[in-house]
Parts: sequence; structure tokens; C-alpha cells
Amino acid sequence: MNPDILKERQKATFDVEKLTNILDGGAEKTTRRREIESMVLSDPDFKEEDPNFLSRSERYDQAIRKSAQMILKLREYGIADPEEIYCYKSMVGGNHIEAMGLHFVMFLPTLYSQCDPQQSRKWLPLAESFQAVGTYAQTEMGHGTHLRGLETTATYDPATQEFVMNSPTVSSIKWWPGGLGKTSNHAIVLAQLYTQGKCHGLHAFIVNIRDMSTHQPLPGIVVGDIGPKFGFNEVDNGFLKLENVRIPRENMLMKYAKVEPDGTYVKPPSAKLTYGTMVFVRSMIVRESARALSKACTIAIRYSAVRHQSEMRPGEPEPQIIDYQTQQYKLFPLLAMAYAFSSVGQYMYQTYHRITGDINQGDFSELPELHALSAGLKAFTTWETNAAIEVCRMSCGGHGYSRSSALPDIYVSFTPTCTYEGENTVMMLQTARYLVKSYRQAKEGQQLSGIVSYLNEADHRRVQPQPVAARPTVVDINDLASLVEIYKLRAATLVELAAKSIQQELQRRKSQEDAWNNSAIDLVRASDAHCHYVVVKLFTDKLGEIGDTAIHSVLSTLALLYALNGITKNSGDFLQAGLINVPQVLQISVRIKELLSQLRPNAVALVDAFDIHDKKLNSVLGRYDGNVYENMFEWARRSPLNSTEVHESFHKYLKPLRSKL
Amino acid sequence: MNPDILKERQKATFDVEKLTNILDGGAEKTTRRREIESMVLSDPDFKEEDPNFLSRSERYDQAIRKSAQMILKLREYGIADPEEIYCYKSMVGGNHIEAMGLHFVMFLPTLYSQCDPQQSRKWLPLAESFQAVGTYAQTEMGHGTHLRGLETTATYDPATQEFVMNSPTVSSIKWWPGGLGKTSNHAIVLAQLYTQGKCHGLHAFIVNIRDMSTHQPLPGIVVGDIGPKFGFNEVDNGFLKLENVRIPRENMLMKYAKVEPDGTYVKPPSAKLTYGTMVFVRSMIVRESARALSKACTIAIRYSAVRHQSEMRPGEPEPQIIDYQTQQYKLFPLLAMAYAFSSVGQYMYQTYHRITGDINQGDFSELPELHALSAGLKAFTTWETNAAIEVCRMSCGGHGYSRSSALPDIYVSFTPTCTYEGENTVMMLQTARYLVKSYRQAKEGQQLSGIVSYLNEADHRRVQPQPVAARPTVVDINDLASLVEIYKLRAATLVELAAKSIQQELQRRKSQEDAWNNSAIDLVRASDAHCHYVVVKLFTDKLGEIGDTAIHSVLSTLALLYALNGITKNSGDFLQAGLINVPQVLQISVRIKELLSQLRPNAVALVDAFDIHDKKLNSVLGRYDGNVYENMFEWARRSPLNSTEVHESFHKYLKPLRSKL
Repeated sequence: MNPDILKERQKATFDVEKLTNILDGGAEKTTRRREIESMVLSDPDFKEEDPNFLSRSERYDQAIRKSAQMILKLREYGIADPEEIYCYKSMVGGNHIEAMGLHFVMFLPTLYSQCDPQQSRKWLPLAESFQAVGTYAQTEMGHGTHLRGLETTATYDPATQEFVMNSPTVSSIKWWPGGLGKTSNHAIVLAQLYTQGKCHGLHAFIVNIRDMSTHQPLPGIVVGDIGPKFGFNEVDNGFLKLENVRIPRENMLMKYAKVEPDGTYVKPPSAKLTYGTMVFVRSMIVRESARALSKACTIAIRYSAVRHQSEMRPGEPEPQIIDYQTQQYKLFPLLAMAYAFSSVGQYMYQTYHRITGDINQGDFSELPELHALSAGLKAFTTWETNAAIEVCRMSCGGHGYSRSSALPDIYVSFTPTCTYEGENTVMMLQTARYLVKSYRQAKEGQQLSGIVSYLNEADHRRVQPQPVAARPTVVDINDLASLVEIYKLRAATLVELAAKSIQQELQRRKSQEDAWNNSAIDLVRASDAHCHYVVVKLFTDKLGEIGDTAIHSVLSTLALLYALNGITKNSGDFLQAGLINVPQVLQISVRIKELLSQLRPNAVALVDAFDIHDKKLNSVLGRYDGNVYENMFEWARRSPLNSTEVHESFHKYLKPLRSKL
Repeated sequence: MNPDILKERQKATFDVEKLTNILDGGAEKTTRRREIESMVLSDPDFKEEDPNFLSRSERYDQAIRKSAQMILKLREYGIADPEEIYCYKSMVGGNHIEAMGLHFVMFLPTLYSQCDPQQSRKWLPLAESFQAVGTYAQTEMGHGTHLRGLETTATYDPATQEFVMNSPTVSSIKWWPGGLGKTSNHAIVLAQLYTQGKCHGLHAFIVNIRDMSTHQPLPGIVVGDIGPKFGFNEVDNGFLKLENVRIPRENMLMKYAKVEPDGTYVKPPSAKLTYGTMVFVRSMIVRESARALSKACTIAIRYSAVRHQSEMRPGEPEPQIIDYQTQQYKLFPLLAMAYAFSSVGQYMYQTYHRITGDINQGDFSELPELHALSAGLKAFTTWETNAAIEVCRMSCGGHGYSRSSALPDIYVSFTPTCTYEGENTVMMLQTARYLVKSYRQAKEGQQLSGIVSYLNEADHRRVQPQPVAARPTVVDINDLASLVEIYKLRAATLVELAAKSIQQELQRRKSQEDAWNNSAIDLVRASDAHCHYVVVKLFTDKLGEIGDTAIHSVLSTLALLYALNGITKNSGDFLQAGLINVPQVLQISVRIKELLSQLRPNAVALVDAFDIHDKKLNSVLGRYDGNVYENMFEWARRSPLNSTEVHESFHKYLKPLRSKL
């Protein structure tokens, strides 16, 4: 153990194990998680080379091997609980993505939820036994978030009782689905359904794309890998071009909508049913944000405790870089953010499960709010985390740029969350639509409930942008409840500002749509402020659940830092709305510095509490034992360029060059 | 040509070619640049596979081949002007780094500047004929920016008249130098010089690391590649461990300091001489920021003109995504930033050359200011550009994540600039040191000149943080000169705030060093504001040089957008210092929206004016002809995973899996 990091651990003012239990949701959950993790650790089948040393094809190969092994082991161990499966898989995967992920996350669930009984009998055994390996082909080259724009067609031919599937344009080629390129022999294809000369919109069809025995692409199928990406190199994100591919009528997923043998279209009973999955996935992305950020903070903070650099005082030894105020200011607010997002992730998870219970009993009342919240929070947390990971990486200096730090892998695996499952700006605008609608309802005298109740006329003093000094400011910058209050009022102000912008545009005889578009900047800002308020509030609420005094104290410090730092970064908003005054801005700066010093002795303990195993972290810089340099040297020596002492390029180009000059 | 992008070009209100000439520094320079670029284009030796399709070893191999070819071709064509060489090389390299770059950028220049006449006679012919291929080994595993901390030792042994070179610890292993791992047979090693029992600090030594004929590492030399990185995959950044390696006394670079045969150390005459290179490199990085950002903007804006998505108005065709206000708000301020940084880059380049003239005549008076400015601007422009490239990438949705967009390559090649040649936070603090020193000098009644003259007591009304409404605000938000003025006053306020923070810490009996560290957040903020002011000022100054009315008009719009957007993003600072008031914040928001609409018709023309050739851009999304989708499909089909229809993993893992279940 590196002596610096040992000393750090001795400084902690709280019981790390207890905090880990809180993050896990109970001591028994921690125990079970570690049990599952140790299954992977002790398993020789999961010994592997760092994927960073492999070629693309080798990485894909290794990932498929692991996917296949995991299937067998999970059955062998009888691990069936989704959370436990998640835990097992993330230990195997480290910072990399599961090659066959889409089979489990999209193909099987879609079959479970959209097959009619006859289809279930046919497809579930095939998919569960991996005779049929599948993916979900929705996105096209020309269309992502806007589903109605998808161009793939499925035209019913009553003569043969088949659908004829086509990719009519280049832009209609299916593009991006994970596992589509090389792995899958089936795809659930989203296509515009045409029957009896009429288009009935998007429906799902099971298309057999490769021969189930030889794995060769079937006639009319052009399928392949979309090429190298920023990350996701384990995954064969693929393309699929359909050229008059005929599938039987029974391959349309018919639990809800149907096409009769004669071509008669039967509408689904309700559109709300597919809504839930989307909300679930976005809520899970909020948890992913917390997890990715926890990893990045663990690496950067442990390394900052081990790394010594420069001179603070002449003649004295070089200080740990974590002792520089600038380094603390880079990292501790992100550590606070990681804890904040963990609370939000837990809240979203619990709320989703609570509401799902209601939905199963036919009560959809809370779904719109959760839908709006999950969209905005997905965008808010992924954007913040995305930027934060890079701050962590750069705070490790040059070594952060090495793949041995794991930070590049964490970044490239995480950054797609800003785009997939709903592009973030579109998500922010969805939340804004809900906020503006709620605002108008409140204006019309309706009493709002839930998280937007602050938009009720009576519930907040109507805040108006006005000269700052003209308003009395009552906020107590050391009181979290008081800070939650001003975050709320900031959100209220910005929602109102956005709503008024739309109104003004309408008064200038702009159409609804142009008014919306011309207010989009304000709408995104309003959503952002709303989400920021929700995060501060949920983090603060979480503190109420914590009994342990020492842990309560350190988490309160983090929450205060998170809240005050957010005010500093957005001080214009708060000043403008008269929620704080100029002397307070200066007080907050001073207070933030104090909080940084206060957190300093607990910094390493706070990342230890995330309890991310070295195997999962896979970072030389973030090792639990702090023995960075020896291990970096050892890692580097395994680099493929070091497999020979003299690279062939010397003989091919460098030596001949001399004689040519 | 894609019809959308054609239409965009027809909308332009200015002559694109004329703006290109301005950016190049004259029409004849544009002509010459294109001449050089066409040499590469028409050269079959530079036809190559996209490096993204190659393994690490193949990428390195291809890069060395290109390096060797470039050496021959540049001689053949007689291209010797540094700017022209740069132009040729960047056309060959595209978004990738030159494998042998360090030989040219550090090894040769160090020999030129630090060899004594006898050494020159020996080493220059060897290095110029590539018998000796070299690198510059300064950074160690444990030490980067802080040079005094380097641990490598060179101990003089008068008995044999040799230096004994050692890496005494793991952390002292040389780490990161480009070309060190596999390419170089020599390294200039920076080491602590010991002679006659005394340490004389860091000096440079030429160490032969590989046999000049077999290229095998020599005895006592442990050398290799440091392993995969975020980017720079063409480059063999290396490690070097020295184990009692003996080199002749004459291998110490002795133009300035010397060790006599008996071991007597002779001091160098002045320390200022090495100062100039650092300033030069940092100034060049400012230009690199402008270039990288121009590339990213070109890709994102062209793609946004071609991509259609969603519905703005029901029933109407999907709009180009560039018509969404949110997309304009993401990209146009970055376009403005690219133009701003281009002006700054030109200024730094010219100033450096002017001052170098002075220095050669023994006048060092302007060097400290340029040194401080280049440190801060290096940090300011690289941080801003770094974040901006990722905004550009994400603004392209999923396709930005594909390596075919080139945006991942541009990012990973650029991001090290935030760390190398002086870590950005350290750079900001260097500039802050100069600012605080200047501030104190002004306080003491000294009259400052140059860019910090705004710190003179008399030159600015002393700004104090105070209630915003209490001060008269005279800024005209449509007048650039007026905006430059408030940027200046913001910088003055923040420099003063930082200086006062130090003073307060000292009054609390803190040491100088602790006072400095406890004010570091404020110091970085002050530097940032200073640099921001300089950028706005230089961009505004640049407008004065432009005669063409149409170009003057569009660049003025960009400058106004840049300035106002910076105020919005930092509105807290401006409000706090009473430089703007609350109604003005709202006016600025409205004005920014107007500027976005105003720029809309010129957006594509403004990126066209950067005139970055498709070959150099290497982006499917950013193609000049806008034919994105067809080319993306074609690119993907070349992906290595598509070289066979069925990947071997199917036979190895997927098929066997079925029978095991």
C-alpha cells in the first residue's frame, strides 16, 4: 500500500463501510454484491488481456466470448434477479460494453411485451436458447430521435400473406443497432406499415437476417458493421439494407396492432403502453451517470493523493497535488455531484417501480410527470457527467491521456448517453413542454401537484427580473433548505421567462411552431434550472434519511458544496432574479473555499465508499493500493508495440531513407 | 453536389475567396498554400487507408512510411520555409500526428541552439541525414511541468571523462517523449548534473539509445512504447530507463554551461535564452486552437445544413437541423470563437516575430509580457476549443460518434494541448503572477504599458463589487468598443479581487505561499478574464484592418456574437461589478437570438472560407459536396469487421453455445 493513500484513509472522519451500505441500499445488498463480484474475480475464464492492447476484431472476439460465457455462468449460478445480473455483468465488462447487450436489453424484452400468445410460443424458446440471436433495428442513417420520419417500409401482400420489407433510400438503411453487424441472425425491424394502399405508421417486425445454421446473410439482406467509432469497439453496431425481403404475416409483432390475412389493419387499443420502457431506460441512464462519475472521481482523487508535484514552499517536499486549491476546486464539486446523482438515481429507480405498480393497476396519473422528469434528468445528468469525466481526466495531467488510466475508456463508453435514447436537447425541450404546460395550467387557476407545484401562483412570490439591490434577500447560504428554495425560485423565474418569450413571439404573429423554436434557448435554460433544482432537492432530501452522525455531516458538506457551486456557476441567474445579492456572491466564494478544506481529509474515503473494485475500475491511476508508477511501467511493457525490440518499419523505411539522401 | 448545401452557398452575402485570403494573410499566400496542398493530393505515394481501419502497429508503420516519404519529397520540391513545410505536412497528416515530429520540432532545434561549434560539426550532419534520429526526453513518469523535480542523474566521472546516466527510481523513468519508444536511436536527455560532489541542476545530454545500424537498444538502456493512448496512435510515445549508461563528456550540450575535463562546472551566462522557444511553442498552440476549432465547425455546420430532422410545422418537410434555434445557439458562437482565435493566432505569430527581432538586438523588454500572455492564452484557447470540439461532435447526433465524422480524431489529437507545454491551470497561474505583479506596481505608482495598462490607477475607474442597481451603466451592447471596455473592467475587477484575497490571507498570518495557494481559484478566474478581454480586443482590432464592406459586416456580427455570448455566460461577473444591469442582461439574450438569425444565411460560407480541403478534413459529415449518406455507407463497408461475411467468433462461441444450453 502506498503510504500517502494509507495516511489519507486514516484521516477519514466517518465509517466508509457504512456509507457504502447506504449507497448500495443496505448492508445485505453490499454483501450480496461483493459475493457476485467475487464469482467473477475468482473465475479463470474471465482472465483476459486489456482490450486496449487488441485489434478491433480481437476486441469483438473477446467480447463475444465473454458474452457467451456469461450466459452459461449466470444459469449455472442461478443468478436471475435483474440487479444481480447487472452487477455480475458490470464486473465482467469493466469499462467496456457487452457485445450481445441488445439481445437482452431490447430483443428479448420486445418479444416478451409485443408477441401475441402464438408468437410467444414460437419465438421465446428460440431467443432464450440463442438459436435466434437478435437486435432492435430502429434508427436509420437519416433518422434518429424523430421516429415518424423513419423510411423503412413493410408492405403487406395478401396474395402470399407476406410483408415485403424495403429500404427505399440510402438514408433509410438501418444504422447503429448494437449487435446488428455480425452477431445477430434476427432483427426486430421498425418499419412503416402499408396495407390496402394505406400507411399505418411505425410497427415492429421480426426479420431473419442470417441463416441460422451457416450465419450467412440471407437473400435481399445487406448487413455489416458500421465501422470504428469513438468507443464501443466491442460492439458491432451495424447497418441493414432490405431489398424486397419477404417475411410471413406472422412476423409482425401482433399483441396490440394486427394485420388480418386479407390485409385489414386492426389498431392497437392504447398508445401509452410503450411509454413505460422509455421512462425506464432514461431513469437507468441517470443511474449510469452517477456510476460513471463515481468511477472517474475515484481515479482522479486517488491519483491526486499519490501524485506529488511542484513546490508549494521552497525547500519543502513536493506536495500531493490534492493539496492545491485549484485541484480541489476541480474535483471536489464533481465528487459532490457524484453523490448528488447517486441520490437522484436511487429516487428515479424507486419512483419508477412505485409508478409501475400503479400503472399495472391502470393508474397512469403520475406517468406524465415521471416522463418529463426522466427526459430532463437524463439530459442534465449525462451532460454534466460527460464534461466532468473529462475534467477528471485532465486533472490527472498527461497520465490521464494514457489508456492505462481508464479515463478515456470511461469517457467514450459514457458519452453516447448524451445522444441515445433521446438526444439531450430534444429531451430538455420535452421537459420544457411539460413545464410550460404546467405553468399555463397554474396561470389558469389549476392547482398543480408533484414536483412542479412550485409553479402554482400562490406557492411562490412571483419573481421578476429586476435590479438586484431593490429586493430584500433572505437566503441563508449555510442552510440547505434555504438554498433549495432559491433554486426553486430560479426555476420558476426561468420557466416564466420562457413562457413569456413564447407569448411575445405569438403577439408578433408568429405561428405556435415558430414561437416555440424562437424561444428554444430559453426553454432549454428553464428545463436545466428545473432539473438543477430537482437534483439539489433530492440530494437534500436524502440527508434526512441518514442516521449516522459522521456520515450525515460529511454528506451535508458535499450537498452544501454542490448547491453553492451551482449558484456560483450560474450567479447571473440568481443575481438577476434577485435571489442573492452581490455581497452574498462574495461570501459564497469564501464559503466554497472553506468547504474544500473541510472535505480534504475525507476525499479519499468518500471515493473509497463507492467501493468500485480494481478489476471493474481497470485503472492504473485509480488503484486501491495507490501503487501507480510500478504498475504503469508493467502495463506499458505489455503494449503490442513492445512485442519486438525493433519494429519492422525501421528496416522498411528508416534505414533505406539514409541511403536515399 | 447536395442541393441543400448548394442553396446555402448561394445565400452568402460576401465573397468567400476574399475572406479566405484574409485568413491566409494575403491572396498570394492562398495561392501558394493550394499549390502545396495539390502536390500532396496528386501524389500517389500518399494514397492511404483510413488509419481508423488499422491496428496500432499498422498505424505506426504507415505513419513512419509517410514521415520518411515527406523528408524525401520536401527536399525534392525544395520546400524549406517553415510555414510551407507546416502546410505540406498538415495536408499529409490530416487529423493525425506526425510520427517523427519530435525529431524536427525538438531534437534538431535543440542541437541548433545548444551545441557548441565542435558539437555542431559532429551532430548536425548526423541528424540532418537521419543517421541519428532523435527525440527530446524531458518528462518523467513522476514529473511533468515542474522541471526542478526531475530525477534523472548525470554524474561526471573525471577518471574516464564520462557522464554516468541513471534513472534512480521508477518515477524517474523518462515517459511520454514522442518517437522515443521505437523510432529514435538518440535522445536528448534532461538530467540533474552532478560533478565534484555537487548538483548543478538540469542540463541536456545526447544519449545514444539504439545501435545505429541494428537499431537494437544499447546496454543499460531499457526503452519501449508507453502503450495505447486516447489518441496519438501514430506516435510511439516512449519510456527510457537508464542503468549506468556512460556517455562521453562531449555529449553534454555545451554552448552555454560546460563541464571541464577535470569536472569543473562553468555556469551559463544567462537564463533567459531558453525562454523564447517556450513562448514560441505556446503561441503556436493558440494557432492550433483556431485550426482545430475551424475544422470542427466546418464539419458540424455543413452537416447541419444537410441533415433534416423532425417536424417544425405539421405536414411540412423536415427542416434542416441548422434551422433549429438550439442548433444555431450551439454552433454559431463556436464559429465566432474560431474567427476570434484566428485573429489571436495571427497576432501572437506576428508579435512573436517582432519581439524575436528585438531580442536578437538584445532588447528583452517585451518578453515578460509576451511570456505571460502566451501562457494564459494557450490555456484559455485550448480549454475553450477542447470543450467546443465536443459540442460540435455531439451536435452531429449519433453520426458524430462515428470515426467517419473525424470529430473523435480531431478531439483526441487536440486535447493534449491542454496538458503539454505547460499544464493549463499552471499556465493560468503564471499569467496571474504577472497580473498581480503588475497590479502591485501600478498601486505603487508605476506607470504600466502594454496590454496590462488597464491596471493603472488612473486608467480605470476603480471598480468595486457593489449592488448592481446603485451604479450608472453606460455600456452600449451594440458597440464593440464599449464591450471591449467592460471586458477590460471585468478583468481589472477580478485581478483586484485576487490581489486582495492574497492580501487578506497574508493579514491572517499565512505565508506568501499559502496565501497564494488559498487564492488560486481567484487567480485563475482573473487570468481567465484577462485572456477573455484580450481575445475580444484583438478580434475587434482585427475588424479595423478589413476594407471589404460585406466581409467587415459579417465579421462584425461574429465579433458581436462572441462578445455578447461571453457576457451571457459570465453574466454574474458583469452584474456583480456593475458593468451591466438586469434589463441589459435580458436585452443581450434577445440580441443574441437576432444575431443567430442574421448569421444563418452565411453560416456555410463562413466555414467554407476556412478552405479546409476534404483530404485534410477527412470527414464524411463535413464533405464539401454535402453527399454524406452515400459516402458514409461506402466508408462503413471498408470496416475491417466486414472483410468476411461471418466472423470467426460465430463458429468459436455462438454456435457451440446452443448445444451447451
